[in-house]
Amino acid sequence: MIMKDIKYDPDDLIAALATPWAESALAVIRTSGPECINKLAGVFSASDKLLIVPGNTVVYGHIVDGNTSLDEVMAAVYRAPKSYTGQESVEFFVHGSLPGIKKILELLFRSGFREASPGEFTFRAFLNQKMDLTRAEAVQEIISAKSNQAQSLALNRLSGSIEGSINSIKSDMTDLLASVEIQLDYPEDEVEMPDVTASETKPIEDKMNRLLSTYRAGKIYQEGVKVVLAGKTNAGKSSLFNLFLKEDRSIVSDIHGTTRDYLESWISIGGIPVRLFDTAGLRDADHPIEVEGIRRSNEIIDNAHVILYLADAQEGITPELTSFMTEYKDDKRCVYLWNKVDKAVVSAPEGFLPVSALTGEGFSTLEKMIKEIVFKDQYVPGNEPVIDSMRQKNLLESALDSINKYNDALKRGMPMDMAAVDLTDALHSLGEITGEVTSVDVLERMFSNFCVGK
Amino acid sequence: MIMKDIKYDPDDLIAALATPWAESALAVIRTSGPECINKLAGVFSASDKLLIVPGNTVVYGHIVDGNTSLDEVMAAVYRAPKSYTGQESVEFFVHGSLPGIKKILELLFRSGFREASPGEFTFRAFLNQKMDLTRAEAVQEIISAKSNQAQSLALNRLSGSIEGSINSIKSDMTDLLASVEIQLDYPEDEVEMPDVTASETKPIEDKMNRLLSTYRAGKIYQEGVKVVLAGKTNAGKSSLFNLFLKEDRSIVSDIHGTTRDYLESWISIGGIPVRLFDTAGLRDADHPIEVEGIRRSNEIIDNAHVILYLADAQEGITPELTSFMTEYKDDKRCVYLWNKVDKAVVSAPEGFLPVSALTGEGFSTLEKMIKEIVFKDQYVPGNEPVIDSMRQKNLLESALDSINKYNDALKRGMPMDMAAVDLTDALHSLGEITGEVTSVDVLERMFSNFCVGK
Repeated sequence: MIMKDIKYDPDDLIAALATPWAESALAVIRTSGPECINKLAGVFSASDKLLIVPGNTVVYGHIVDGNTSLDEVMAAVYRAPKSYTGQESVEFFVHGSLPGIKKILELLFRSGFREASPGEFTFRAFLNQKMDLTRAEAVQEIISAKSNQAQSLALNRLSGSIEGSINSIKSDMTDLLASVEIQLDYPEDEVEMPDVTASETKPIEDKMNRLLSTYRAGKIYQEGVKVVLAGKTNAGKSSLFNLFLKEDRSIVSDIHGTTRDYLESWISIGGIPVRLFDTAGLRDADHPIEVEGIRRSNEIIDNAHVILYLADAQEGITPELTSFMTEYKDDKRCVYLWNKVDKAVVSAPEGFLPVSALTGEGFSTLEKMIKEIVFKDQYVPGNEPVIDSMRQKNLLESALDSINKYNDALKRGMPMDMAAVDLTDALHSLGEITGEVTSVDVLERMFSNFCVGK
Repeated sequence: MIMKDIKYDPDDLIAALATPWAESALAVIRTSGPECINKLAGVFSASDKLLIVPGNTVVYGHIVDGNTSLDEVMAAVYRAPKSYTGQESVEFFVHGSLPGIKKILELLFRSGFREASPGEFTFRAFLNQKMDLTRAEAVQEIISAKSNQAQSLALNRLSGSIEGSINSIKSDMTDLLASVEIQLDYPEDEVEMPDVTASETKPIEDKMNRLLSTYRAGKIYQEGVKVVLAGKTNAGKSSLFNLFLKEDRSIVSDIHGTTRDYLESWISIGGIPVRLFDTAGLRDADHPIEVEGIRRSNEIIDNAHVILYLADAQEGITPELTSFMTEYKDDKRCVYLWNKVDKAVVSAPEGFLPVSALTGEGFSTLEKMIKEIVFKDQYVPGNEPVIDSMRQKNLLESALDSINKYNDALKRGMPMDMAAVDLTDALHSLGEITGEVTSVDVLERMFSNFCVGK
């Protein structure tokens, strides 16, 4: 296969910390490679046991450097091909001690192992046909998922849903190509031949388009969207920010990135990971620090998917509000909130959603509106597979492109054997999606985005 | 036993994330409790396998909430008493996905498990006599160790070195008490009786004192010391700071806590974890921010174990230097460095160590001097057990105290049976060290300092 040239040599013994580099109860050090159990027996106190236990067995012992114990550990032994990588593999469950982890890794690196590159374990799983490329990509997508929904969609891909869809399309394509080839073999025959025309490709194109249409939704779920709270100081932005945090039962991280200019936090709105920003109040100031704050707030607003502009219902329409509405006229990202409606005398003007960060009034409507803006003109996925990978999207588009060329060629009366080349190209693109055919470059780029230890 | 009152009910099913809460290749969710495997079969796809596999087996499957998969996982099954806690136990190796981890924990908490309290797994190990209290304490000491040496010393304690020493002292005490009790039983007897006097306790006291003498060194290795770089701006503090970081091959963490006032980083000097501070230059300024910076620098200097004062050899003796030396006269924590010696014309005055942060000159001497100051008048541990726990130290002291009382009583001609009570007290204190006898309060306090999941 193409694997000769790749810098990830699958015959190397590799090791890596698979858990985060931080003090904790447990850490996992993962190893893999041909004969890796033999090699590890040299640094493990219960080496006899390590060598003879059946696969999927956990062995108690010490990691030893000569006569010195480096840690008391459990070692999970996996025998080929029944392992994540398909190779012999051992996972050590060690104390989550930073000096301890470091010592063990250093010992392994002195004992014939090298540090695993990002995604190298999964890369080997792919090489050893434990999973196709769409599943391999799903592994990293699960890890970096920012909401429950994103994690579910990625898990669905890991179970092979994309692979299944692609294989079904490929099978249709292969049938089509076969019937084309029959015509090529017996062009003059008297036999009743199927008439291969553009319409034949329609069901295949439909399937591809359907899968493609899930891409933007997949991306939204996987990467999340930016929602920004804007408005004057004291319009209640902080209270609304906190309300979002409180209501969000699936909150993933605590507030981070507190600066003098803005707060931000990942929250989840209806399964969409939302990076919520609370900007500094939009002020007009001469002080350079204030000006810098305003510049950054505006930058966040410009890059946001949804802008929640808070007006203070007690103040009514202010010059700032008017000026903002003029500047962002026809900007479909804007939602105008008539905040503090519980205390207001004036009811919300048209185009304003009455809300109260204090009582929670209008909050669920607001969440619905945010979801609508995010998914505007987009396919909202049901139970079917949703693609999130740009690589997969590009290959699908290129397969569609080849089919279009084929149809064009037929229309222009090109000889069938020349047109059929385009069908082969399309099939090739589909094969690249699952990794049946693929290039070293693509693989290296893909796996380099992975976590180390995965 | 005393365990009736404890809030950590060992019959509860408990679960916790044992790895850090962060995106990573793998995360480990730990569970334990009577019949926990049965309970988990309800949320595991390969439930039949989970139920029948022998202990120490890893099973592949999905964690399922009804028909929905929450993650594809490996489950390590441990059967009582062969587990960390001594109870049935399952560890799930799941994708290091934050929403995924959260979903799984929530499912477990809905399925009869409660969140484990800090140290609760180790607490159960103690209850089920998998380890005594000194080993249990060592578990957390390993995790929080800040240098290789600290981790080794803690690992030595985990292997039972303290328990062994205490048991040996206890055995001597028990013999002594037995001979005292013989005298009590046959006070008028004609038999030749051993004459129990103060000298009898000497070897026992020596053993205890020897162990006690390791405490401060243990504390230094476990908790580390503070070393601060002081001196005028541009005296070369930052260069020396960076040199320490570069030379330190066992560095545990990267620079953190960068503020406008000082830099800090954990480094290791000869196995001692050192929290190194680079203060803002000592300036005299009227600006309130500068004044605040100076105040904080002085606070760091006051709390440091070692103060490295840098003089710029090119400048020679400055008024600032003279004023510092007057203020810190006879302060044994101070080391005066004649920095930039490579460029200087004037050689170092007496009491100054010539160094060059540029060429590294004087650096190894400096490290030796720091170690000397840190360990001044203190026992430096060899291969013997080193205690780090204040709890253990206090109990040893209280045992020694009781022995002193016993000797006093003998001297004052108190009846032997009254004096013997003190020996029993001493034995009791020693029993508390290993946890043979202990109170709920002590246990709760001790384990509450643990990591969750350990």
